[in-house]
This record gives sequence, structure tokens and C-alpha cells, in this order.
Amino acid sequence: MKNKFLGYQCSQCNSEYNPEDVIYTCPRDGGNLDIIYDYPSLKQDHSPEKIKKSGLESLWRYLPLLPVGQVHGDGTPLQVVGLTPMFSPQRLSEQLGLRYLWIKDESRNPTASYKDRASAVVVARAREIGASVVVTASTGNAGAALAGMAAAVGQKAVIFAPKTAPPAKVAQLLVFGAEVLLVDGNYDQAFDLSIQAADEFGWYCRNTGYNPFTLEGKKTSAFEIWEFLLSQESIRSPLAIFVSVGDGNIISGIHKGFKDLLRLGWLAQMPRIFGVQAERSAAIANAFFAGTEQIIPVKADTLADSISVDLPRDGVRAIRAARQTGGAYLTVSDDEILASIATLGQVGIFAEPAGATAYAGLVKALQQDLVSRDEPVLVFNTGSGLKDVRAAMKSVPPAIVIEPSLKAVEAALHTPG
Amino acid sequence: MKNKFLGYQCSQCNSEYNPEDVIYTCPRDGGNLDIIYDYPSLKQDHSPEKIKKSGLESLWRYLPLLPVGQVHGDGTPLQVVGLTPMFSPQRLSEQLGLRYLWIKDESRNPTASYKDRASAVVVARAREIGASVVVTASTGNAGAALAGMAAAVGQKAVIFAPKTAPPAKVAQLLVFGAEVLLVDGNYDQAFDLSIQAADEFGWYCRNTGYNPFTLEGKKTSAFEIWEFLLSQESIRSPLAIFVSVGDGNIISGIHKGFKDLLRLGWLAQMPRIFGVQAERSAAIANAFFAGTEQIIPVKADTLADSISVDLPRDGVRAIRAARQTGGAYLTVSDDEILASIATLGQVGIFAEPAGATAYAGLVKALQQDLVSRDEPVLVFNTGSGLKDVRAAMKSVPPAIVIEPSLKAVEAALHTPG
Repeated sequence: MKNKFLGYQCSQCNSEYNPEDVIYTCPRDGGNLDIIYDYPSLKQDHSPEKIKKSGLESLWRYLPLLPVGQVHGDGTPLQVVGLTPMFSPQRLSEQLGLRYLWIKDESRNPTASYKDRASAVVVARAREIGASVVVTASTGNAGAALAGMAAAVGQKAVIFAPKTAPPAKVAQLLVFGAEVLLVDGNYDQAFDLSIQAADEFGWYCRNTGYNPFTLEGKKTSAFEIWEFLLSQESIRSPLAIFVSVGDGNIISGIHKGFKDLLRLGWLAQMPRIFGVQAERSAAIANAFFAGTEQIIPVKADTLADSISVDLPRDGVRAIRAARQTGGAYLTVSDDEILASIATLGQVGIFAEPAGATAYAGLVKALQQDLVSRDEPVLVFNTGSGLKDVRAAMKSVPPAIVIEPSLKAVEAALHTPG
Repeated sequence: MKNKFLGYQCSQCNSEYNPEDVIYTCPRDGGNLDIIYDYPSLKQDHSPEKIKKSGLESLWRYLPLLPVGQVHGDGTPLQVVGLTPMFSPQRLSEQLGLRYLWIKDESRNPTASYKDRASAVVVARAREIGASVVVTASTGNAGAALAGMAAAVGQKAVIFAPKTAPPAKVAQLLVFGAEVLLVDGNYDQAFDLSIQAADEFGWYCRNTGYNPFTLEGKKTSAFEIWEFLLSQESIRSPLAIFVSVGDGNIISGIHKGFKDLLRLGWLAQMPRIFGVQAERSAAIANAFFAGTEQIIPVKADTLADSISVDLPRDGVRAIRAARQTGGAYLTVSDDEILASIATLGQVGIFAEPAGATAYAGLVKALQQDLVSRDEPVLVFNTGSGLKDVRAAMKSVPPAIVIEPSLKAVEAALHTPG
């Protein structure tokens, strides 16, 4: 493994570190670390054909491009993360006037969100470094993903959540057997406490925008898109990718995946990457619009809880993902997000608010001519609507109540025979 | 297509009908109809090897053994139903002392339950007969599956649910764009009204235990198990399969799948099939224990809502699935179901109560020596825990609340470093 995983590079000051010298962020300036590979020898030893022939129907098919030594979780949910379906809903592409539209459905991951990709690789890393405990701060998808992937292989997990976390989300963590500590404070206090506890007790900390391995898991969707594009000879223009953005780690991961492929010489064209934020949780979009990399925290207030973030922990790389690829940022209102839940539902895709946010961003990007109708477009649904049924209820008008008679049916019907 | 789908046979009186002569149940005695195939020509034209080579990673790989003419739902969630993962959680097999244990995880279907299999085939059939509307009575998984699969291909769907249905479940139906009519009455009234409306308006009715195509969708998991067993040379004894039972249609479907394979001469040994019911919703188990096929309705009362059934609509075939295969029925308490949610969660599988019921049945079957530790065992998880988070909350003790300090962490911990 050593020969492919060369070390880390700080995304802020470009300092480089050996694998054994650091664990989390840059010791100099606290910047997020990118994992760097020995691309020349990877290129020599591997090829797109070889990956295709691996036969693994999960993100583990990309093992040569991941910073772990082996496939983990044989026969468990950890083994089946990734390789999510790409739907091509014709009614939506017609509605939008798009030539090509794909929806990559991350709700099909084992714990029903994109976060399983990150947790899969972090748990694999935890096994390889012999970590006794993996810890994270989270109330939502990241916590569920860590708890689920850890449970799959019998890895101990501790989750810090603010006391105000919805009991239903906490229940999922508990069912997965994680030890859950509800902190009498806000999310930032839970975040800081999880890092302190990791230091104190020698635990391995998964926190997003802190542990460099989450990005490596999250980059794998880029590989899946790339493999798909290789099979589509009719696609010549670069793909426009839309993804919702909270702390910025998913969009940065997607960008990293494509950058890895570019450095291997395996990617013909870098896709344009578009980040979509809720307008009342838009710290990264604000910086993008201002033309800086300076993130100013906001007081986040959106029903899309998975991307409701005051202080994004991976903002700089998230800005670059759009800026360096000819993409952009968009912001959408909660009402636009709710409308997109209903739109996606009508083609059989049930998204949580953060999942539907990217689609709302696409609608706006077309209005603003940021993408043309001829461009091939891919939109991520990052999480299942089952994660937040209350938001789903707000996205549609209520059902009609009728007496149990045919007459009442007839009177109520929108859908005659 | 005609040449493979020969017609129907009544499971009660054995009367046979041509495909165009009936739609739902036996006109003579109301018995459930089995779809019969031209097995000799199927055997001539197809083979296990050919199925394997189809390349389709869904239940559509079994198209030759399904009563529809083509694959439906290209590029939509309808196309990716089935071929669910089989996990082999080592900690559970060790805990139970079993040599081989697999968990087939149906929560990985597009709308997160086994019911997608049935709805996929019914929606395909609806398209082929040009149905304007598909209708069903349901509050839960079957309704979600129909609404989701119909939405995938733009098929209109109407769902009748009792007024008392949980708003969250109704929301999922509405998000999928189904027309939902809440009947001011109980489930049986909704069931009857849906059939009347189908007759009156010329709609196609999906009701479980009424439409013979649901069973054909549900049989496909048997094919997946069979294909898996073909690849396992070390397995010599017949498999013991555990599945939860409500109206009896899933267990009957699994049985039908294996019977199809037997008639094709492709199955070496019929698995033993074990049905598991909640003890306060046990109409089918009661009849099994009494040695009859006479189903006496009960007043169902279990937290496993997906298998809470007063009058099972597919009881006779469900009894035979166990009786004719050397299997049995078991009943389990709600507490045993809750305990199984926690047990499965600890290996990363999040099951709804009906999903965990089969595992609770396995635990009991081992206590009663109904299966031996040497027998290979497969347990179905039929639905996702995200469908019923309230039950999940009952399955585990609550989380601990702490002050935001390391001291408080240390004092609260079960999991030291």
C-alpha cells in the first residue's frame, strides 16, 4: 500500500507530509489535507479496463485508487457501498428541454445517503491502523453512516450529537449499536468535544472537513461517473454536475476524484461542477460570489438539515471545485427545495431536502443560462426522503378524505378511468 | 410471450383458465390463481447459464420466467428492483452457532421493501395490457412500492388507505404523485372499495392476494437464492429459509419461485420454508398448527404493522409453502421482534419490525430444534427500519445526555479507548 499512498498535501499552504507524520489537518495552518498518490506507478500498474474487470459491484472496484490496502467488510453492508444507479428520467429531461439528464441516486447506499462512501473508507482505514474506537460529531447522515459501517465489521463507534438532535435520528445511531453521547450544547460544541475526546482517549476521529480520508471515500462517485461516460460514445461536451453543498466535503470529493483521473491521464475532459446551497445556509456560495476563498460563517436556517451549516469545514476546496472547473454556485430557497422533492418524486425518486437541492439548482442554472440545453447534465440525489418524512409532507398537498362509497370516489377523483 | 405464459390455475379447485379469460381470482370459488408456464419449451429455450449471461443486475434477468414480454422502466427505479444483497454476518452466525447464515436484505430495493418486486411486475403487466390506472388498497409498503414503480414510468396510480393511516406513510405516496384517497373506514373497507372502483372505472387492481401477478414478482427472490446456491459448492443440505408472514403473499411467492425451478429441472433440492408471524397476528400460523387450510380471521395487534393482518388474503398457499417443503410456522412476540431489530442493527442492518420478525423466528426455531446448527440458513429482512423509526426507538435504551466537557464524557462512557 505504501507505494501508492505517498502522503498528504495541505490545500492551503501546499506543505507536504508523509503518511505517518500527520493524521488530520495541516499542523502549520489547520488547512484540509489532500491525499497524494504515486500517479506514475498507479498508471503503470492499472488501467480503466483492469478496474472494469475487477468484478466488484461497489466502490471497492476502485481499491487501487484508494488509500487503503484491501477490500473490507466481506459479506456485510460495508462491502456494497457505492456503484449507485444513474437514472435518466425522460419526463424531466423533456420538461427541462435537456438532451441528456442523469440522476445519480445516492439514497441507494446501505444507510441511504452519500455519506456511506466516506464512512466506508474511514472505517477501512480505522481497521488498518488498529483503531479501537472511531468517533464523530453528527446528528444526521454522517453519524448514521459511521454507525452503520462500523457495525458491519464490529468496529466500536462513538457519536457526539447535540442534545437537540431529533430522537428519530438518534434512534438509528443507537440501533446500529453506536455509543451515543448527547451534548448539552450546540453542534459546534459537539464537534470540538469529539476532537478533544479523540485526542484524550486515542480514538480515531472521522469528523468531516477534518479527517482527510472522508474525501477519499467521497471521490469514488466521480470514478463511477467517469466509467459511465467511457461507455457513452455520443457524449462529447463536458458533463455539468450538480450537487448540494453543506460543509463542502462532497463537492470537494467529487473534484478530487476527477483530478486523480486527470493526473492518471484517464480523463478526457474535466466536468463542470456546480455547487448548490440553501440560500439561508450559503457561506460557501457567498465566498464564491465575492470572488474570495474567505469563508464567513452564517447563522444557518434551512429545512434541508443535512446542508444546514454555520461554519463549513471544507469551504476552500469546495469553492475551487466550482471555480477551477468552469462551474458555479447557486442558491435556492426552501420552497424551491420542496418543489424539487415533489418533482423527483413524480419520477419515482424520493429525496430528502438536501438531496433535492441539487435539482432545484439545475432548474435555476437553466433559467440563468449557466448551462445550455445541449450540455449533458448529472444531478446528485444525496439522501433518501425516508430520512425526513416531515419535509416530504410539506412538499405535497394533503390527501382527500372520503366516505367508503363509489359515489364519494367519483366526486373526489382527479384521475378518471 | 403467449407461448410461455399458458394461463392460470386455481390454488383451491385446480380449475384452469386461459390468460384472456380471467384477471384476478378464480371465478368459481374466489381462490388465488397461480400463473402456469410452458415449462418444456422454457427448458428448451433457456438455461441457468443463459440467465447468468443476461447481464441484467435486477429481477429482470429472470424475464424468461416472468409473465411479461419485455423489460420495463429503462433508466428508472423500476429497472433496478431486486438482486438484493445477501449478507453473511459472522458475529450472528457465531452467536447462534450456525455454520452458514445469510441475510437477504430487501430494504435495498428502490422504495426500501420487498414489495417493489410485486409492484414492478404488476406495473409491467399494466403497461402491456394498456391499463389507464393501477389501483391498490394499502397504507404501507405495498402502496409505496406501487406509487414509486408507477411514477418511474409515468403510470397513473390511485391508492386507497384508511383515514387512520400514519400521515408520514401517506406523504410518501403523495410525493410519488399517486392520487391518495383516505377512506373514512378500516383497511377492509378500503380494500373492498378499491376493488369496486377498479370494476367501475376499468382500472387495474394490484391488491395483494387478489392480483395473480404480485406473486410472480415476489417469486424472483427464490431465483436469486437459487443462483447464489449454484455458486456455493460446499452447500449440500437444503437451505432453511425464514420469512415474515402477514397476508401470506411473500412466502407463497418464494415457494412458487422454487416450484417453477423444480418443474424446469433446474433445482437440486427444495429449500425448507419457515413462516414467522407476530403472535398477535397469527391467522396463518394458527391454521398451520391446527393442521388445516382453514383460515380463521383474528383481531391483529402487533407493532409490526406490515404484517398486522386480520384476514390474510393468501393464507392457503402460505400454509402450503411451509407444509409442502418440510418447513414450519413460528410465532414471536413484539418484544422478540424489537430485540431482533437491535441484533440486526449491531451488524449494520436496519430493519423495520416486520423485517426483523424473521430473525426472531430463526432464534426460536433453533431453541425448538426445528433446524439444526449444521443446516444452511437464510433470513429475509423484508423492509427498511427507516420506514418505522418509532419502533426503532423502542428497540434500544435511550442515549445519555452529558455536559460539554471531557470529564463528563469519561464519566458516561461504556467504551473506553
